[in-house]
Amino acid sequence: MSIELEHVRPADIEKRSMEIIESELSAPLDPVLAPVIRRVIHTTADFDYVKTLVFSESAVEKGVQALKNGVFIVTDTTMAQSGINKRVLKRFGGEVLNFIGDPDVAAEAKARGITRSAVSMERAASLGVPLIYVVGNAPTALVSIYEQVQAGTMPPPALVVGVPVGFVNVVEAKELILKLDVPYIVARGRKGGSNVAAAIINALLYIASSNERE
Amino acid sequence: MSIELEHVRPADIEKRSMEIIESELSAPLDPVLAPVIRRVIHTTADFDYVKTLVFSESAVEKGVQALKNGVFIVTDTTMAQSGINKRVLKRFGGEVLNFIGDPDVAAEAKARGITRSAVSMERAASLGVPLIYVVGNAPTALVSIYEQVQAGTMPPPALVVGVPVGFVNVVEAKELILKLDVPYIVARGRKGGSNVAAAIINALLYIASSNERE
Repeated sequence: MSIELEHVRPADIEKRSMEIIESELSAPLDPVLAPVIRRVIHTTADFDYVKTLVFSESAVEKGVQALKNGVFIVTDTTMAQSGINKRVLKRFGGEVLNFIGDPDVAAEAKARGITRSAVSMERAASLGVPLIYVVGNAPTALVSIYEQVQAGTMPPPALVVGVPVGFVNVVEAKELILKLDVPYIVARGRKGGSNVAAAIINALLYIASSNERE
Repeated sequence: MSIELEHVRPADIEKRSMEIIESELSAPLDPVLAPVIRRVIHTTADFDYVKTLVFSESAVEKGVQALKNGVFIVTDTTMAQSGINKRVLKRFGGEVLNFIGDPDVAAEAKARGITRSAVSMERAASLGVPLIYVVGNAPTALVSIYEQVQAGTMPPPALVVGVPVGFVNVVEAKELILKLDVPYIVARGRKGGSNVAAAIINALLYIASSNERE
């Protein structure tokens, strides 16, 4: 078997990938949402996201504006944190926070019989400022956000990226977020992940950067 | 719409997830490969991996043995590095290396017109010891491994986890690895990712840990 590699310069690989994705879509995407949907497909090679990604009214515009204003981001995993383009984020004044590894978070979670992710979201809320919440792993983090928004104990999120992956309470936790009156980007169903979460934030960051250049 | 959450204790979520995965499989898995395949599905909620994951002869056993011997791991992304369970790895004496962020790697890649990932794999090879190569993102890293093994400039890898995701040369680069006489775990086709890469290594680490306890 002979294997032919396509000759593409490193700098052009992403552009070529996006062209392939565009050419395989069965219908044109909403132009505002397209950069986010395309980047998620680029990250997963999974076209299911065309159907499963749900955006609240003006979610992309609101997320981009928040990032331009230097909003802080909180993630439920170090993997999502690792995947976010911190260089671009920092240019706007933003930072990525993550409480999952804090020893007292683990202790509190154990004492209360809840997940570290849920405790992390309470820590984030206690900062008292609007944040972008990025959940790629833990449905319990989404449930915590839902309960805190409903209870009024969390400042209104600038955006909730709700894309945990899995089999236990994942579908249900995402549906809870869809009931909230907050900006959200959610991948309905079981699929998602920290890579998807990071891809969504990076897509927003690149929109923010390209607006800036215009 | 009423949303019912299943009551599962934090410590039992993974066990319950694995039970659901097991119950939805259309045929029983090979018992040696099952822990790896199940963990990848757990990480992606994507049953395609039952068909796409390819294991060289005794790849799981060889990977587990190498980890128990304290092998070092090199990844192509910080995200894969971030997802690997370093606590368990460290217990066996292993570490995760990553050269992608080194400034001189970027400079060399630019000068030679190749990717930073490809240069990273050369840096890893130059250590002169067998490593586990974990590629969740860059097909060019796999091509580099293929060329170096063929040229004899890379010590025989302890294992190659070849699961990059994407649209440009990804399918082809994975097929190259299947031609090598080295232990490999490859996800054929376009799908994969840093999360899949980390899940495979973590599955091997958990097998190694449970062997240890027996």
